[in-house]
Amino acid sequence: MNELLRILRAVEQGELSVEAAARQLKTEPFADLGYAKVDHHRRLRQGAAEVVYGAGKTPEQILGICRDLYRDGNPVLVTRLDAEAAETVGRELPLDYRPLPRLGIVGTQPPHDTENLIIVATGGTSDIPVAEEAAVTAEFLGCPVTRLYDVGVSGLHRLLAQLDVLLQARAVVAVAGMEGALPSVIGGLVDCPVIAVPTSVGYGASFGGAAALLAMLNSCASGVSVVNIDNGFGAGYLAAMIGHIGE
Amino acid sequence: MNELLRILRAVEQGELSVEAAARQLKTEPFADLGYAKVDHHRRLRQGAAEVVYGAGKTPEQILGICRDLYRDGNPVLVTRLDAEAAETVGRELPLDYRPLPRLGIVGTQPPHDTENLIIVATGGTSDIPVAEEAAVTAEFLGCPVTRLYDVGVSGLHRLLAQLDVLLQARAVVAVAGMEGALPSVIGGLVDCPVIAVPTSVGYGASFGGAAALLAMLNSCASGVSVVNIDNGFGAGYLAAMIGHIGE
Amino acid sequence: MNELLRILRAVEQGELSVEAAARQLKTEPFADLGYAKVDHHRRLRQGAAEVVYGAGKTPEQILGICRDLYRDGNPVLVTRLDAEAAETVGRELPLDYRPLPRLGIVGTQPPHDTENLIIVATGGTSDIPVAEEAAVTAEFLGCPVTRLYDVGVSGLHRLLAQLDVLLQARAVVAVAGMEGALPSVIGGLVDCPVIAVPTSVGYGASFGGAAALLAMLNSCASGVSVVNIDNGFGAGYLAAMIGHIGE
Amino acid sequence: MNELLRILRAVEQGELSVEAAARQLKTEPFADLGYAKVDHHRRLRQGAAEVVYGAGKTPEQILGICRDLYRDGNPVLVTRLDAEAAETVGRELPLDYRPLPRLGIVGTQPPHDTENLIIVATGGTSDIPVAEEAAVTAEFLGCPVTRLYDVGVSGLHRLLAQLDVLLQARAVVAVAGMEGALPSVIGGLVDCPVIAVPTSVGYGASFGGAAALLAMLNSCASGVSVVNIDNGFGAGYLAAMIGHIGE
Amino acid sequence: MNELLRILRAVEQGELSVEAAARQLKTEPFADLGYAKVDHHRRLRQGAAEVVYGAGKTPEQILGICRDLYRDGNPVLVTRLDAEAAETVGRELPLDYRPLPRLGIVGTQPPHDTENLIIVATGGTSDIPVAEEAAVTAEFLGCPVTRLYDVGVSGLHRLLAQLDVLLQARAVVAVAGMEGALPSVIGGLVDCPVIAVPTSVGYGASFGGAAALLAMLNSCASGVSVVNIDNGFGAGYLAAMIGHIGE
Amino acid sequence: MNELLRILRAVEQGELSVEAAARQLKTEPFADLGYAKVDHHRRLRQGAAEVVYGAGKTPEQILGICRDLYRDGNPVLVTRLDAEAAETVGRELPLDYRPLPRLGIVGTQPPHDTENLIIVATGGTSDIPVAEEAAVTAEFLGCPVTRLYDVGVSGLHRLLAQLDVLLQARAVVAVAGMEGALPSVIGGLVDCPVIAVPTSVGYGASFGGAAALLAMLNSCASGVSVVNIDNGFGAGYLAAMIGHIGE
Amino acid sequence: MNELLRILRAVEQGELSVEAAARQLKTEPFADLGYAKVDHHRRLRQGAAEVVYGAGKTPEQILGICRDLYRDGNPVLVTRLDAEAAETVGRELPLDYRPLPRLGIVGTQPPHDTENLIIVATGGTSDIPVAEEAAVTAEFLGCPVTRLYDVGVSGLHRLLAQLDVLLQARAVVAVAGMEGALPSVIGGLVDCPVIAVPTSVGYGASFGGAAALLAMLNSCASGVSVVNIDNGFGAGYLAAMIGHIGE
Amino acid sequence: MNELLRILRAVEQGELSVEAAARQLKTEPFADLGYAKVDHHRRLRQGAAEVVYGAGKTPEQILGICRDLYRDGNPVLVTRLDAEAAETVGRELPLDYRPLPRLGIVGTQPPHDTENLIIVATGGTSDIPVAEEAAVTAEFLGCPVTRLYDVGVSGLHRLLAQLDVLLQARAVVAVAGMEGALPSVIGGLVDCPVIAVPTSVGYGASFGGAAALLAMLNSCASGVSVVNIDNGFGAGYLAAMIGHIGE
Repeated sequence: MNELLRILRAVEQGELSVEAAARQLKTEPFADLGYAKVDHHRRLRQGAAEVVYGAGKTPEQILGICRDLYRDGNPVLVTRLDAEAAETVGRELPLDYRPLPRLGIVGTQPPHDTENLIIVATGGTSDIPVAEEAAVTAEFLGCPVTRLYDVGVSGLHRLLAQLDVLLQARAVVAVAGMEGALPSVIGGLVDCPVIAVPTSVGYGASFGGAAALLAMLNSCASGVSVVNIDNGFGAGYLAAMIGHIGE
Repeated sequence: MNELLRILRAVEQGELSVEAAARQLKTEPFADLGYAKVDHHRRLRQGAAEVVYGAGKTPEQILGICRDLYRDGNPVLVTRLDAEAAETVGRELPLDYRPLPRLGIVGTQPPHDTENLIIVATGGTSDIPVAEEAAVTAEFLGCPVTRLYDVGVSGLHRLLAQLDVLLQARAVVAVAGMEGALPSVIGGLVDCPVIAVPTSVGYGASFGGAAALLAMLNSCASGVSVVNIDNGFGAGYLAAMIGHIGE
Repeated sequence: MNELLRILRAVEQGELSVEAAARQLKTEPFADLGYAKVDHHRRLRQGAAEVVYGAGKTPEQILGICRDLYRDGNPVLVTRLDAEAAETVGRELPLDYRPLPRLGIVGTQPPHDTENLIIVATGGTSDIPVAEEAAVTAEFLGCPVTRLYDVGVSGLHRLLAQLDVLLQARAVVAVAGMEGALPSVIGGLVDCPVIAVPTSVGYGASFGGAAALLAMLNSCASGVSVVNIDNGFGAGYLAAMIGHIGE
Repeated sequence: MNELLRILRAVEQGELSVEAAARQLKTEPFADLGYAKVDHHRRLRQGAAEVVYGAGKTPEQILGICRDLYRDGNPVLVTRLDAEAAETVGRELPLDYRPLPRLGIVGTQPPHDTENLIIVATGGTSDIPVAEEAAVTAEFLGCPVTRLYDVGVSGLHRLLAQLDVLLQARAVVAVAGMEGALPSVIGGLVDCPVIAVPTSVGYGASFGGAAALLAMLNSCASGVSVVNIDNGFGAGYLAAMIGHIGE
Repeated sequence: MNELLRILRAVEQGELSVEAAARQLKTEPFADLGYAKVDHHRRLRQGAAEVVYGAGKTPEQILGICRDLYRDGNPVLVTRLDAEAAETVGRELPLDYRPLPRLGIVGTQPPHDTENLIIVATGGTSDIPVAEEAAVTAEFLGCPVTRLYDVGVSGLHRLLAQLDVLLQARAVVAVAGMEGALPSVIGGLVDCPVIAVPTSVGYGASFGGAAALLAMLNSCASGVSVVNIDNGFGAGYLAAMIGHIGE
Repeated sequence: MNELLRILRAVEQGELSVEAAARQLKTEPFADLGYAKVDHHRRLRQGAAEVVYGAGKTPEQILGICRDLYRDGNPVLVTRLDAEAAETVGRELPLDYRPLPRLGIVGTQPPHDTENLIIVATGGTSDIPVAEEAAVTAEFLGCPVTRLYDVGVSGLHRLLAQLDVLLQARAVVAVAGMEGALPSVIGGLVDCPVIAVPTSVGYGASFGGAAALLAMLNSCASGVSVVNIDNGFGAGYLAAMIGHIGE
Repeated sequence: MNELLRILRAVEQGELSVEAAARQLKTEPFADLGYAKVDHHRRLRQGAAEVVYGAGKTPEQILGICRDLYRDGNPVLVTRLDAEAAETVGRELPLDYRPLPRLGIVGTQPPHDTENLIIVATGGTSDIPVAEEAAVTAEFLGCPVTRLYDVGVSGLHRLLAQLDVLLQARAVVAVAGMEGALPSVIGGLVDCPVIAVPTSVGYGASFGGAAALLAMLNSCASGVSVVNIDNGFGAGYLAAMIGHIGE
Repeated sequence: MNELLRILRAVEQGELSVEAAARQLKTEPFADLGYAKVDHHRRLRQGAAEVVYGAGKTPEQILGICRDLYRDGNPVLVTRLDAEAAETVGRELPLDYRPLPRLGIVGTQPPHDTENLIIVATGGTSDIPVAEEAAVTAEFLGCPVTRLYDVGVSGLHRLLAQLDVLLQARAVVAVAGMEGALPSVIGGLVDCPVIAVPTSVGYGASFGGAAALLAMLNSCASGVSVVNIDNGFGAGYLAAMIGHIGE
C-alpha cells in the first residue's frame, strides 16, 4: 500500500498526530545518505527485495546504499554493477555477482512466491546479457522464468518449435536488437502482455538500438509495449509486477 | 487458446486428418476479401469483440471488413475512423460513432465482464482525444474505466488530489504530450503497471511527440512501459488484457 | 549492350569515324527537350518499354516526354502520375491509367517474355498502393507476378498458408510499413533475393516510414536488400531485372 | 528446398508419421547449444558452406558453433571475427584468418561452382575492408570475383577505364563511404543488379555512414538496392545468390 | 568599400565630426520602416542591384521595402515572391515576375558587367525551379549564365557530352536532389569552385533534401562547398561574387 | 505564497481541521470544468492576470475557461488563439484580439507595476509574430517593453546602433530563426539575462527551427538560456518574472 | 558598464581623443596571448571573479590564461579542468581543485556578496557532478547555495519534503538526466525562475541527454528555461546573475 | 586543362591514334598501386603540389603513395596524418610534420605565387587545429594567409578590432564550433566569399558539430558557403582556388 496515503489516512482517523505525520512525511520514507536518498518504501512484495541502480554511482556510494538497505537482512538487487564495484561491495556484504548481465544480489534470493510463468526470449545470442538482466530481475522478485534464447524471426521454425511453452506464459519479455521483429511475431502468437526490449546489438543503421526501438513501437501486434533500449531490468520488473497480479 | 496449436494437437490426437488440418490451416483462420484477410481468431474474450484499424483503408474496404466480422452479431470496434467512412458504414450497419477519438462501434457494446479498474489519465485538455481512444477501447473490451483528465505535473495538487482513485487501479494509462512526465510521476505513486502514451500534442521541439516519447522511454519509475505516439488503442487494449488477468 | 562502349568499339574497329562517334556520343543517346534529356538507350528488353518518373514535372512536360518516347510505338510506363497529368496525357496518347498506384501505361503493355515468377507481398491493406506500383512495373517489364497482400507478421498463419507459393518465386518484393518485419520473416523462409520496400504507412514513431526502413536495413535474414521508402517502382524494376537473368 | 515444407509434404504423402514430423520440426533443424540454435538447414549450395556471425559472441561460443557446424567437414565462414577469437578457434580447428575484413574460413574453401562474375568496387582505399568482406563471402559461396578498388566518382576516368570489366558482371557490389555516389554512377553504366554498401568511412557530417546510406537509398539509377552500413557480408551473400540464379 | 570603416576613417582624418559620425552610424545605413530596417549599403556592384527576401513578409511589407529601395531607380530583385505578393508589387512598381523560381525584378535588369561565365547545372527536371533562382540571381548581379539541365549522374553521357562547356566556367552551381551526387562528379571534372545546392526534390528517405545535403557535405571532390537546401539565391549570389573577382 | 504549504501550515497551527484541509487540498485550488481543471492559484501578481493556452482546445472550451477565470473581473490572457475561437470568446466577453501573435486579452490590461525594462529583439521581420507574443505577454504581466526588430547579426551596425537601449534592459528576449546567432551576440554585449527564443522561420536545413534551437543551446555567451521553438509566451513570462524580482 | 559604449561616450564628451579611442578599442579590452584573447572586461561583480573554459585547451594554454587573469590577484574559476591540467596550473598558481565537477579556483574564493539564495536540485545521484559545477560557479560568483540532491519525480515525497526550502529560492537550478521531468515539477511548485540543466546521465534512448533536453524544452510549467546538456556552469552563471539583480 | 578532353581533342585533330588514346585513357592518368590509384592529373598550379588524404590508410599505404607522387620532386601535402604514420613516412622521405593539425609536407613548400590574401578566423582557441589545417593547406597551395584566432561573436570587440585586416581578404575561412555564428557575422562585414567550417568543438547539444553545421547552412549573410565538419583542408583548398582566380 502507498505509504504517503497511509500516513494521511492515519491522520484522518486520529491514529497519528499532525506533527508526527509531518515528521514521518519528511524523514522516514528514506534514509538521507547525502549523495542519495535511500527509499525504504518501494517494495513489490511484503518483507522483500530492494533494488539499486548501479550506473553512475561510485563503488563506495553503491556499498553505502546496499549497507543501508540490507541492514534488515532483506536481499538487495544491484543492476549495472561493474566488476570493480562488485568487488568493493563483496568485500563487506554477501554478494552473488553475475558478470554477464552485470547484476549482483546482496543476501539470499528469496524463493518464488507465485507460479505464474514469465518467459524471456531473445532474437540472437548477442541479446543474452540484456535478457539475463530481465530474467534474473523477475526471479529475484519472485517469479519462475523460462528462457527461450536465439529464436529470431529469420528462422521461424526455432520459434514455432517452442509454441507450447510460449502459450503458458503470464507475460513474455521479448528481447531483440537489429530489426527488432521478435515482439511483433510473438505478440501475434500469444494472448498475454508482451514486453519488448530493444537492444543495442547491431551496427551501422541500428544506430545503437534505435532501429529496434522504433520497430517495436510500431508493432502491429496488440498487447505489445516497449521499454528503453537495453533496459532488461525495467522489463523484468514489469513482468514480475504482472506475474503477481491477483496474488 | 491458440488456434494453430489446437489444430496441430487435433492431428496428433487423431481427431483431424492431415488433409483437413492442412485445409483448415490454409483457409479457416481468416476470410480472404482480396484486399484484406479478415481474422476470425483474435479475440480477447469468449463470444466477443473484434477490432478493425481504419486508417489507410477506403470506406468501402472498412464496410466490407465490418460486414464480414459482424455477420455473427459480435460487436466490432473500428479505430481511426474518419467521418466520411463512418457515414458509409453507418448507412448499412448499426454504428455508434464518437467523433473526438474517431472511433466507431458496430453493434451493441457488451457489458463489463470484470471489476478490475482501468484508469486513464491525461496531462492536459489537448490529450483527451487520444485518451478517449484508450478509454473506449478498454470499455469495449470489458473493463470499467475511470478518467482523470488535465492532471499534468506542472500542477501537482491536481494529481495528488486524486491519489485515492489512482491507488485502486489494476492498470493506469498515462497520456501526455509536451514533456511527457506524467507516467514517471504516476509510476512513482502506484504499484500497478503504467502504460505510457506519448501524444503529438505540442509544438516546436516536441517534434511531433518524439520529445514525450523519449521522456517516457527514459522514465526512472519502475513498472512503466510505452506504446507508439498517439496509440490510444494499443494502450487500451493492453490495459484490458491486464484487466482480465486471472479472470 | 552498353551504347557508350558500342560506339567506342566501333571506332576501334574502323566501323565509325571519330567525327561520327563524337557526334553520336554528344547527340544521339537522348533527345534534348530543353527541360529534359529523353534517354533512348535505357531499355531492359529488346524493342520495348520506357519509363518516365512523373513527380515534379508539369503535365505538359510529361506529355512532351511521352510523345517523344512513344514515337516508335514502344509502350511507356509513367510512375507518380497524378490524375490531372493523366488527363493531359490521355487526351493525346492512348493511356491506361491506374489511380491507386498512380501509374499510367502509354500504348499496349507487352506480353510476358519470361516465366520466372515475381511475388509481391504486403504486411497490410494500406501498403497495397506501393505494392501495386511494384507489381505493375514488373509486369510491364515482362514478368508474371503473384500478389500476396495483408500477410503481416502479427498473424503468421496468413503468411505460412502461402508458403507453397512463396517458394516458387525467382524474387520476392516484400512491402511493409510500421515495424517493417515482413522481409525478415520472408527472407528466412525463401532462398531467393528479397527486395524490401518500406512504406510510409503508420503514424507517430514510424516517422514517415523511417522505422520500417531502419528495421529492413537491419534485417538478420540473408538475401534481403532495401530500396527507398514507398519506392515500389525501384523494387519492381530490380525484381524484373532479376527475373530476366539468364534469358 | 525448404525443409519445413519438405516435412509437411512427406506427411501428406504418407512418407512420414505425424509424430515423426512433429519431432523433426521441433528438434532437427538446429542443434541447440544452449546459447545458440545452430541451424543446419540454411545452405546456399548442396554439400557446402555455413556462415557464423561472430560479433557479440564470446570466443568460446564461436568455437562451439564452428565445431558443431564443421563436424561433417563442411567449410564454415565466420564474419566479424576479431583476432582474439580467431586464435581461440584456430587452436582447435583449421582456420584461414584474414585480419583486414576480420573473416575466418574453417576448413577448405570450395572451388567456384559457377562462372557468373561478381564485381566488387570501392570509392576509396579506406572502403577496402568492407569490400573484402563482400568479396571473400561471394568467393566462399562459389562465385568468381573481380575487385575494382579506389574508383570513386570524383575521378571518373578511373571508373570509365574499367567499363569493359564492369559490363561483364552478373552483379556489382558497390562499396562507398562519404557521399556514397558510386552505386548511382555504376547503376547508370551497367544493366545488372547493383548492391550498394554504404561504409562508415568519413567524418563529421557522414554521421557514421548515414550520409552514404541516405544517398544510396535515394539513388536515381534503376537496379540499385542497399544493405546496412558496413554490411559487406550481406552484399556478398546476395551477390552470390544472384550469381547462382539459373544454375 | 565597407561603410562602417569609411565613417571611422573619415573621423580619423577629420573629414567628419564625431557627432555626425555617430549620427551616420545610427541612422544612415538603413531606412527604418518599423517592420524592417532597409539596408542601403549592401551592393555587389556600383550603382546597382538590391535584393529582398520575400518569404515571411506580407505583400504590403514587400511593396514598402521595394518602394524604398527603388526610389533611386536601382533595380531590385525579390526572391521567394509568391503570386499574390507579386500582384501587389506589380500594381505600383514595374515588375518582371518569373513564377517558376518565384522571383521578381523591379525595374530594368542591368546588362552584364563581366564576361566570366557561371554555369548552372541540375541533376533532373524537377530541380529546375531552384536552379532558375540561382541563374536569374547571377544574371541580375551581372554575370553571363549557361544552363545545363537534367544531366544527373545516373546517365553520365549526358554530362560528359557537355564537358566542353563545363570547362569554360569561372564557377559552377550544381543543383541536385535525391542522392545529390552531381557536385562530386562535376567537382572531379573542373578546376573552378563548385557551389553545391541540395534540393528538396525526392521522397521517403530524402527527408526533405537532407540526404542530398549530407552527400554534398561529404563530397570527396575538392573545391566543393554547400549552401542550404533549395537556396538557389545564395548559390547564385556567391557565384556572382566569384564571377566579379578581379574586375 | 504557495497554497499547498499554506494549508499544511494552517493545519500545523491549528487554524484548520484536518478534514477541512483535505477538502481544500482536493477541491479548492482549481475549478473542475470536466475537460479542464482551471487553476485559480497561479498568479504572478496580486489581484491580477490569468493565462490560458488556447492550442488544442475547442472554441467552446476556451470560452468556458475564460468565463470561469474572468468571473472576478481579473483580466485573462489567451495565447495561441485562432480567429475562429477569438470570435466565439468575443461574442460573450470583452476581448482585445491581436491577430499577428494570435493573442487575446479578456478584460482590461492592467497598467505597469514596475519600471524594470524588458527588451524584445528579433533577427528579422519574419520573427515578429513570435516576438509580439513575448512582448504582449510581458506587458500584460506588468512590465514596460521596448521592441528592437530586424537587428540580425548579418548587419551588425543595425544592432550596435541600439546599444544604448540594450544596456538599459533588466532582461532581453532575443528572437531569431535561421542560424539563431542573435542571443549570442546580444549576450556578449549586455550584463543581464538573455532569454533566447528560436523561431521556425527558415527553410531547408532549418528543420523547423531546430537549427536555431541548437545554435542557441550552444551559445558561448554567458547568461543565455533557451525556451522552446516559437515559445514567445514562455519567454515573455520568464522575462516578466525577472522584471518583478525585488518588487 | 559596457566598455565599448564608455569609450564612445568619452569621445563624444571630449574626454578622449579619437586616436586614443581607436587604440583602446583595438588593444585594451583583451590581452592577446596569440592562441587566446584574454578578456579583462567581462566581470559580474566589482573587483572580482574571472572564468576560463578549460576544455579543448592545452594545460600550458590554461596556465597562460590563468597567469594573465590572476596578475591582479583576482580569483579565477576554471571549468572543465582535467586532472592533468590541474596539476600543471597548481604547480605555479594557488589552485583549489574539485575533481568531481572538474573545477579549479585560482586564488581565494571571495565571500558572498548577496543573501539571495540559489537552490541546486538533482533528479538522481548520477547528476551530482553537473550540479556541483552549477553550485560551485554560483558560489564563486557570490551567491549562497543550497543543494537538494536525489529528489527525482519518481519519488515525489523526497521533493515535497523539501518544499519549505524550495520556496525560499531566488532561482532554482534543476539538474536531471533520463526523462528530465524535475524542472517541470519544480516549476509548478515555485514562483521564481527555474534554470533547467539536462544531463547526459542515462542510456539507450536518452541519446546522450537529448531526451532530457527535449523534455525540458517542452516543459508546460512557466518560468522554466534551458541550457545545454551538462552545462552546469552556464546554469550557475545565470543563477548568480539573477541572484544579484537589484544589488 | 582537363586531361580527358585533351586526349579526345588530340584524337579529333589526328595527333593521336585511337589505340594510343584508348591506352592513355586507361593507363596514364594514374599509377595503380593496387590499393590506390594515384592520380597525377589533379594539380592546382603548374609544377606543383599534390595532396594525400591520410585517414583510413595504413602507414605503409601512405608511404607508398607519397613515394610515387614525390618521384618528380614535387612537394606533397598529407592531411589527417597521425604521429605513427608520420614517423613511417619521415624515415624515408623528407617530411615537415605539424602535430596540431596533423599535417605533413613531403619535400619543400613552394613560395607564394599570388599576393591575394586568405584570412583564417576562429571563434575560439579550441578551433585552432582545424583552422591550421585550412591555413597550412592554403599556404601550401601558394597563398599568403593571415590568422585571426579567438574572435568569437560573444565578444564582438575582438572581431571589430580586426576589421581593417578582414577587409583586405580575397576570401575568408571562418572556423567555429558551438553555435557557429562567426561566418554570419563576418559575412555581414566583408564583400568576399566566406567559407564556413563547422568544428566538432563543443559538447551536449552540439552533437559533434551538427549544431554549428546547421547554423552555418542557415546563415542569413550572403556569400557564405559551408564545408563538412572539421574539414579544414577542403576550406583551405577552396580558398586557395579562389585566391588564384585571374592569375
